[in-house]
This record gives sequence, C-alpha cells and structure tokens, in this order.
Amino acid sequence: MSADRIIALSGGVGGAKLVLGLTHTLPAERLLVVTNTGDDFDHFGLRICPDTDTVIYTLSNLADKERGWGRAGESWNFMEAMREIGGADWFNLGDRDLALHVYRTDRLKNGASPSEVTAYVSGVLGITVPIVPMCDQSVATMVDTAEGRLTFQHYFVREQCAPKVTGFAFVGIEKALPNPALISALRDNPAAIVIAPSNPFVSVAPILAVPGMRDALRESKAPIVAVSPIVGGEALKGPAAKMMAELGMPASAVEIARHYQGFIDGLVIDEKDAHHAPEIADMGMHVEVAQTVMNDLNDRVELAGRTVEFAARLSGGLER
Amino acid sequence: MSADRIIALSGGVGGAKLVLGLTHTLPAERLLVVTNTGDDFDHFGLRICPDTDTVIYTLSNLADKERGWGRAGESWNFMEAMREIGGADWFNLGDRDLALHVYRTDRLKNGASPSEVTAYVSGVLGITVPIVPMCDQSVATMVDTAEGRLTFQHYFVREQCAPKVTGFAFVGIEKALPNPALISALRDNPAAIVIAPSNPFVSVAPILAVPGMRDALRESKAPIVAVSPIVGGEALKGPAAKMMAELGMPASAVEIARHYQGFIDGLVIDEKDAHHAPEIADMGMHVEVAQTVMNDLNDRVELAGRTVEFAARLSGGLER
Repeated sequence: MSADRIIALSGGVGGAKLVLGLTHTLPAERLLVVTNTGDDFDHFGLRICPDTDTVIYTLSNLADKERGWGRAGESWNFMEAMREIGGADWFNLGDRDLALHVYRTDRLKNGASPSEVTAYVSGVLGITVPIVPMCDQSVATMVDTAEGRLTFQHYFVREQCAPKVTGFAFVGIEKALPNPALISALRDNPAAIVIAPSNPFVSVAPILAVPGMRDALRESKAPIVAVSPIVGGEALKGPAAKMMAELGMPASAVEIARHYQGFIDGLVIDEKDAHHAPEIADMGMHVEVAQTVMNDLNDRVELAGRTVEFAARLSGGLER
Repeated sequence: MSADRIIALSGGVGGAKLVLGLTHTLPAERLLVVTNTGDDFDHFGLRICPDTDTVIYTLSNLADKERGWGRAGESWNFMEAMREIGGADWFNLGDRDLALHVYRTDRLKNGASPSEVTAYVSGVLGITVPIVPMCDQSVATMVDTAEGRLTFQHYFVREQCAPKVTGFAFVGIEKALPNPALISALRDNPAAIVIAPSNPFVSVAPILAVPGMRDALRESKAPIVAVSPIVGGEALKGPAAKMMAELGMPASAVEIARHYQGFIDGLVIDEKDAHHAPEIADMGMHVEVAQTVMNDLNDRVELAGRTVEFAARLSGGLER
C-alpha cells in the first residue's frame, strides 16, 4: 500500500461523483474509498448495498447517469414479473443490477465478508481503486420521523422522504469495527481525508459513528476536508436540506460547517456560498470556495483536484 | 375437496403437456397435480424448482412453448450481468423467471412451506387446479455416472446429459413425507392416478420413492395408469432413452411397462408401439394405444381424455 493516500468517505450519488473525479486526479494506489453501509438492507432476502453499488457502478462506468442510481441500459422485467406474483414493488431492482445483489447475497451466505465481495466485484469490473465498506458488520440506519421509526430505504424510497424527520439511529453500530483496510491506510501517513458531498446525517454520520472511527481519522494527522453538500441553501440531490429544515437548522453551508466543527480542518463550499466564507472561517476551519456542482466529468475532476490541493495546503499547518 | 379426482404425477415439460390437457378435460376441482421436487436445487442461494415451475408456467400460459422451459417473452440481462461479474452461467435464469425464484426463496426463508408458496403463486397467476410438490422436505436427485455422482441439474444442464448413467439416488428422501394434500385426496376416493409421460428415473421415481407414497397410491383403490414417455424407442424430450440404454435396457415401451410392472394397472402407449401391446398385456396390465406425441393443444386434450377414459374403464375391474 501506498503512503500519501487520499481517503475518501462517500455515500451514494453525490459522493460517487467526487470519487470519480478523484480517480481521474490521482493514481489508483493513492486512493481509498470508504463507503457508507448504513443504507444496506435485505430485500426479498437479497443483501442490497446502495451506496457501495453506486460507487462501483460509477467507477466501472456502468452507472445510469440520468437516473442517478442503478445501471445504464437497464431492463425491468424482473420487477414486472414480481408485480405479477404480488411481490413488493416499492424498491426497483433492475434485471442487470440484480446480478450483483444475487451474487453478493450468495457469497455472504457462504462466508465471504462484505469487503471481500466488494473487492472481488470491483476487480472483475475493472476498478483499480480500492473500495471498502465502512465496516463488515451489519449496521442499519433508521430515520426517526413524526410517523415513527423507519428503516432508511423505507423512508427514502418507499415514503419518498415525506415523513418529517426527528432524528437518526444506527442500529448495530456498537458492534461495528472500522474496516481494517482503512485502519491500515490511516497508519500509513495518508495525505488527506476527504468527506464527499454526501448527506451528513445518513451517508457520512454512519461512517463516523463506527466506534473508534472518528479518533482513528483524527489521529492519522492527515487534514480532514469536507465538501459541502448544501449549495445556495439547497441539497443538489436527496433530502439533506429537507432534513436540516425539519431538524431546526437552516439549510446552509454554515450549518454544514457547524455540523462538522471540531472534526474537519477545512470545508469546500460553493461559489454561491462564498459570502459565508468569513463566518465559516471564524469557526476555526479553513475554507475553500469552488464550483461544487458537478454537472459533467470535467466538473468532477476539477472539484476533486481543488479539494486535493486544498487539503495539501492544509497539511503543513495542522496543530493536531 | 372433490371425490372422483384425477391425481396426476408429473415431472417437467412432457408431464406438464399432459397436465395441461387434463385441465381442459376436467373441471379444476377434479384434478390434483403432484410435481417432482427431486430436481429442485439451490443456485446462487435461490431455491429453484424446475418441474413445479414448468407446470405453473404451463398452466398459467406463461411458458415458452418453443424452448420447453422458462417463460415466453423472456429477457436475459441478469445472466449477462452475472457473466460480467464472473458468476456461474451454466444454468440460465431469465429476468422474469427470476422473480419466482427470488420470491419463493424469500418466502421459504421466512418459514413458508414449498406447498404454501406453490399454492400462492399458482393462485395469483390464475391457476385454479391445485398443484402440490410431492413433499415439503428437501430431496435431491443425484445421478451416478461413470464420472462420479452429479446433482441432477449438473448432470442435466451443466453436463448436458453427457456422462454415462449408472444409477440414481434421492438424497434426503428418507425424511420426506407425501404431501398432505395428496394423502387427503387419496382418502377421498380418487377416480384415477395418472403418471404423466415424464422420465421414469428422475421425474417419476423420486415421487414414488417418498416413503409411504407407493402404498398410499395403491391403497387408494384408484386405477393407476401411466403414459409411456418412450415412443418408437425414443424419448420425445430429455435423456430417458439414453439413460435406459446406459442402464442396459432397451429403450422401448415394453421396458417402461416392465419398469412400472406390479405398480400400475394400465399403460398408454403410442400408436407406433401398438405391436408391443400383446407383450405388455402379458405382464398383467391393461394397454391403451393412443397418439401420445403432443404437438399442439388438441393433442394434449385428446391424450388427456383418452387417458381418463382408459382409467375409468379400468376402475370397475381392479382386484386390489
């Protein structure tokens, strides 16, 4: 393994975009991608890992770029037949996508770890960047809402994020251990830890909630920089802004800074939020203003490069 | 439940054809279809029941009539994606077909019995004829070959029936119990038991090998009639004739009669084999000559009608 690595913590779609940019900015051996597994769940008895799969499909160029999840050129005949026989149809599984879920479930049942399956599938799909789940233990993100506690996918997909959020829980987290590959990378003088522009509550928080994770990341001495998932008061994708409003915080880059205050060394905010830079700097973190909206591959590569450079500038002057 | 029922024992394709004919000959409440489950196996952790599924797809008019297995209008994107990630590809699973396997596996895992799942799926697909697996316990047909013991699907699909057969075993059969719905029907004065033109060694033998099955069928007093799966020395479908040759018996309707001798009361043989009728009659069973090759629905209905009438003629004069 290489020293000088960039360790990226990622959720699904937004995170995967920055991760793709990083793969174009750095050689594969200088990257380690850590994915959120709090969204993982069992559906029809199949183990489904939405964030890990989104990263895998994005890096293998199989992702559907329009839809934001699943595979391009997908067909839906399995779902149609499932509907015919009265099976649950609130979670769409494409015919091609299904291969990964069936394959993974079978491997897990036969004793493989989530890390092993992720490494195997990544490799066979031509991905050279190591992707590791945050932990190999089962963790389930729960969304507490005005209508009761929902598993993340029930909240996110079945209920379309409609119920008002009151809090979150990560069931099983107390038994989780940070992925050993991550611990090993952290001991090997990483260059930076990058928190991708993923939902802070349901994509990044589960990763940071793995016991020992925050300390391990901080103790690495590498600068920790996050990219704000809130741009101009809105989330580009997903329910982050809605959640913030429901939790009584303004949906703003400032609140993202407050959320990560004391943990991150720097925050990348969007040009639209440049006026917030002084207020964020006053919280004791460095601020980088960049175009964080990633419409195409160029934007992804550009933002990845800016984030890595920003972290590099910080690495000299950290006082941890 | 109705008395006067026809109980049909069926394997896959050939059996399902006759069963379809029976459904056009008799009202649904006068039929009970018992399927072979010795072919059932786990693939990618999914429980697959080829014979039961073929009967379900045939009776719900979803079956692919050309291919002989699986569903019409099928797509194969799951398999293509499975191949991409290096999963086993020797057993083809169509995208639509997969819904049934995934659904069943999940239901079984949650405590449903094979009978319950079969009944539910049949019902939801509009099948009014009761279809029951021979037993709810797991039985695995093994084919002993010159190259060693193979599970049935490895022999049949992966090895394309190439290895020379030396014998058969039904692993787990000692713990199997005849399906309670069958036992109940047998106690209710059934009109006849029909053994469909399925492979005698790997489709019918597992059903008859369920402990207590032969006695229960014989004790019902209903005439037991079989339809020969061998026509003019050949099997219309599958490896029956090849197996017979390898086991040192001529592939002929006479050998089918000998195989079932002492158990069946009558055998339906094809017109091509009419010259064998006297020899078969000498074995102590009644013989009916009919067109047993079922090219279209008319043929299926015609043969079903002939078989039912044949059994009805026998029911007076049985000495059991």
